[in-house]
Amino acid sequence: MARTLKDLGEREAIRRLTAHLPAAAELVTGPGDDAAVARGDESSDWVFTTDPLIEDRHFASDTPPASIGHKAAGRALSDLAAMGADPKYIFVNTVAPADVPIETLEAVCRGITDLARTHGAVLAGGDLAEGDALALHVFAVGTLPRGSAVLRSGARPGDRIAVTGPLGGSFASGRHLNFTPRVDEGRFLRESGLAHAMIDLSDGLGTDLRHIAAASGTGATLFSERVPLHAGVDLNAALFEGEDYELLFCCPAEALEEIRVGWPGESAPVEIGVITEERTLSLVDASGARAPLEDRAWEHFRPEGPRP
Amino acid sequence: MARTLKDLGEREAIRRLTAHLPAAAELVTGPGDDAAVARGDESSDWVFTTDPLIEDRHFASDTPPASIGHKAAGRALSDLAAMGADPKYIFVNTVAPADVPIETLEAVCRGITDLARTHGAVLAGGDLAEGDALALHVFAVGTLPRGSAVLRSGARPGDRIAVTGPLGGSFASGRHLNFTPRVDEGRFLRESGLAHAMIDLSDGLGTDLRHIAAASGTGATLFSERVPLHAGVDLNAALFEGEDYELLFCCPAEALEEIRVGWPGESAPVEIGVITEERTLSLVDASGARAPLEDRAWEHFRPEGPRP
Repeated sequence: MARTLKDLGEREAIRRLTAHLPAAAELVTGPGDDAAVARGDESSDWVFTTDPLIEDRHFASDTPPASIGHKAAGRALSDLAAMGADPKYIFVNTVAPADVPIETLEAVCRGITDLARTHGAVLAGGDLAEGDALALHVFAVGTLPRGSAVLRSGARPGDRIAVTGPLGGSFASGRHLNFTPRVDEGRFLRESGLAHAMIDLSDGLGTDLRHIAAASGTGATLFSERVPLHAGVDLNAALFEGEDYELLFCCPAEALEEIRVGWPGESAPVEIGVITEERTLSLVDASGARAPLEDRAWEHFRPEGPRP
Repeated sequence: MARTLKDLGEREAIRRLTAHLPAAAELVTGPGDDAAVARGDESSDWVFTTDPLIEDRHFASDTPPASIGHKAAGRALSDLAAMGADPKYIFVNTVAPADVPIETLEAVCRGITDLARTHGAVLAGGDLAEGDALALHVFAVGTLPRGSAVLRSGARPGDRIAVTGPLGGSFASGRHLNFTPRVDEGRFLRESGLAHAMIDLSDGLGTDLRHIAAASGTGATLFSERVPLHAGVDLNAALFEGEDYELLFCCPAEALEEIRVGWPGESAPVEIGVITEERTLSLVDASGARAPLEDRAWEHFRPEGPRP
């Protein structure tokens, strides 16, 4: 019997769909990182990312339109930030029911352009089509100096793991609608040359750290009590809820001080763990007790079921 | 009372949404052409386009999956062709119901990658999300030598209007599912430096010629009996149905012979009209009688209603 997306889950489906893609010489990084990196010329690379934002899945129907636009642009800008890129252009395919007031879409558009402007990008095109629910498909383009993109795959055993801010409770608090993508922080880390690996925390700390470890061929240990949490939020929310849109980066222990000195953000990054040679992920609590880090990411298509 | 997308129609809605977008110095062409053109470096520009392909709107539910992928990629490649660009990368946000078999998406993916490969592009990323109907949002990236993009806005009075192949009946015949985007032809026209303006025929000859005339500040005269038609199709189908994905270009009369000599396609381009200084669009029939070219494009949201 044919296996459906529900049987496989999002991650396994994407693995199957991307397993046999041909490589391209000028594509530095293809599917599997926060964004794709393509060779531009002798001095620059281009960074591309796509993000869907769908009514009743990524936002509730009663979300203020400007917040929908903010979130749509913010997710894509966060992906660019995770490579250390300078955002340049945003394109948006908008799908909307015919009875949506134009003022709603104008407000969505303002949400996009206001956030884009803050980070040096412009809305440069897109399309408008009819559909049953509101959906925004954002494509974002950035640039960076040739060869300087910070990938998921560069973490090394002994590297310290740090995050750019407190985690957890993004949905319950509404933070998923008004977060600031860490573009300045990502650019600073790229410019410093000190970060070996980076990812934006969209799937949850536990899951995104797993992505870093898998791409780098390492393991990782998290120190539970060091993970910065938003008020009223527990560790599990930080590990598994997602949509925090902070950055996680890995760097040598001795680089952390230098990073803190030049840091462009309001609060310094927080060291929460260490990359290990042994390819397992674990949590160490305040008493020193070690437990395996659960693998239970939320996935499109099979939110609850076990991984295949 | 708030005006809805249905009240305004797609074109007026897009006009309102893009009216106040900030410009960017490095963006050569933003919203309003087939694709956006951005300055790369001293020698190259980058070309970006987005295209939605939605079940029950752009394809029927029983369409073979590989044809869905072909059409999705083909529409975006056709936009790149209309600028004269070399296709490089394709990104696809796929929205699908949870009960879609993975084999269906694998076939969609093959349809995309097979066509992409033919034209020198690779599938370089995307996303997968759950939704009620199958939808593909394609983002395509191309390059071309700096300043060489063929825009909609370059037509000059006296220019001849030519198309790359027969038109009409694309939906009824199924050609909208298996067309060849005119990438080679578009590249040749760009390299030749002979085409002043170009567009791909996605909305219908009448409507797309109107786009060229509006962007160029000109009018145009079409000679009805010269418009090449597919078998069993009448002129109105060519003018107003759309989805032909041939190219329309404008060039000096004396350039047509040179273009025909070097032409990379199977059949030579066909001269069908002339650009005029007077800013009206008209049809001249075999008897020499002149009639205004109707403005009745199909639009998302208000397929039948009058334009606001």
